[in-house]
Amino acid sequence: MKLVRFGEPGRERPGVLHEDSIVDVSGRIRDFDPRFFGEGGIAHLEAVLGDVDALPRVDPASVRIGPPIGRPGKIVCIGLNYADHAEEAGFPVPTEPTVFFKAPNTIVGPYDQVRIPRGGDRTDWEVELAVVIGREARYLPDEAAGLDVVAGFAVVNEMSERGFQLTRGGEWAKGKSCETFNPLGPWLVTPDEVADVQALGLWLDVNGEPMQRSSTKNMLFSVGYLVWHLSQFMVLEPGDLIDTGTPGGVGNLQDPPRYLAKGDVIELGVTCLGAQRLTCVGADD
Amino acid sequence: MKLVRFGEPGRERPGVLHEDSIVDVSGRIRDFDPRFFGEGGIAHLEAVLGDVDALPRVDPASVRIGPPIGRPGKIVCIGLNYADHAEEAGFPVPTEPTVFFKAPNTIVGPYDQVRIPRGGDRTDWEVELAVVIGREARYLPDEAAGLDVVAGFAVVNEMSERGFQLTRGGEWAKGKSCETFNPLGPWLVTPDEVADVQALGLWLDVNGEPMQRSSTKNMLFSVGYLVWHLSQFMVLEPGDLIDTGTPGGVGNLQDPPRYLAKGDVIELGVTCLGAQRLTCVGADD
Repeated sequence: MKLVRFGEPGRERPGVLHEDSIVDVSGRIRDFDPRFFGEGGIAHLEAVLGDVDALPRVDPASVRIGPPIGRPGKIVCIGLNYADHAEEAGFPVPTEPTVFFKAPNTIVGPYDQVRIPRGGDRTDWEVELAVVIGREARYLPDEAAGLDVVAGFAVVNEMSERGFQLTRGGEWAKGKSCETFNPLGPWLVTPDEVADVQALGLWLDVNGEPMQRSSTKNMLFSVGYLVWHLSQFMVLEPGDLIDTGTPGGVGNLQDPPRYLAKGDVIELGVTCLGAQRLTCVGADD
Repeated sequence: MKLVRFGEPGRERPGVLHEDSIVDVSGRIRDFDPRFFGEGGIAHLEAVLGDVDALPRVDPASVRIGPPIGRPGKIVCIGLNYADHAEEAGFPVPTEPTVFFKAPNTIVGPYDQVRIPRGGDRTDWEVELAVVIGREARYLPDEAAGLDVVAGFAVVNEMSERGFQLTRGGEWAKGKSCETFNPLGPWLVTPDEVADVQALGLWLDVNGEPMQRSSTKNMLFSVGYLVWHLSQFMVLEPGDLIDTGTPGGVGNLQDPPRYLAKGDVIELGVTCLGAQRLTCVGADD
């Protein structure tokens, strides 16, 4: 299934993509939020869709598409999970995942405007595979168990303000949690529709110019490994989001560096998971 | 007012401390959660208490005391905010706040058990002043505006697993978000009951032995400054929690280092805000 949420920001309704239209399930399901995932919502949604022809349909072109999940309890990010990005960043290739958090109120929809923060002149892109957790994960035994708690996959642009990230204090937090810095979607795709999550192409263009081209086969740590690993350090909960790291080609590390400006258009996608188109605006636009 | 939540974990009810008992306001208020703060809940609570004698009372000794707020949207932590701690940690005294995040599902009550994580042999304490945000804060103009959006103050033990924090990858995240690592409370105290938030004593003992003794007057960056500063990098929302940093005396930096073990009792408090008593147990106890 491809889960989708549509409507104005903060008032999105849940739906499922079906034959090029959105099946509106809001009459049967409140939202794709942490409670939905925690209460076995995916199985319930499958049952609801058993009677798909009785459900209202919406033309995707007629509505705003929001992020495919409601506010997660946390966003966990993986840094330096592709060797080419670790190398371009001048970091040694890590021997275990680098982990940081992003504020959960950074999530916006896949075709929304993204804001360049006040005082930010090094705002950057990062195409990534996003993973949504479907069941509580605490001290999982192995990678297979890690993959087993995944509810689905999505495209994410894990945006950064490099000046804030690298020059304004010891940790990366200040450059990762600016408003609109985690566009997610268009869809949350359930694992049954993804034949091999470690063989998905990733791409990102700015104003039509290719910037990032890679595949999840180049990840240093696989999705199952990451979820297993994180569960040794924290309790992952249904609805939590993991941004699994970006490949080479970010703006900060190009020669000369390339940063985002008002009016720039970022397009990005992941095989099987759809594509985003984001327009950059100012903090106060 | 002193806001308190009581009852079993995950099913706490809201109340207010009054004449040594808890006034149960659960008949009028659902919870002290982000929605409560965002909808002007403090003013509503004052109105509810206008008829205090009509409300049921509970003996605090007869119930479990939970954390005084429901799950926040984010926990923002300040590192190295006391000169003596920065010096003992071997860091230069920062010229602007060091910021990192903690997973919101680490919050437990002030008399609960805290868990030493599997594989953790350097688990440590940090008494801190916690701040709860009452109104959205986005690009605030100054420190006074920062203090103005605060809903209240509480005691927090911002626990850390130093091995996970310092030796398992580039950022601090892995050592800060283990289960039970953010005991909060007993109360959320509204600003009108705190004459000067920059003159509150902080203390922490382990098994009766003094470990931390300081005052919020020793903060490098004041509460108002921190909230103002954070609002330049992220949008703070009602119900968000800020752990404002710890003074010297953590276990990791003693000579020889002192770490927590099963059975240890941590007691800590902040002037006007009450005290915690936490017992250390294993990850699987």
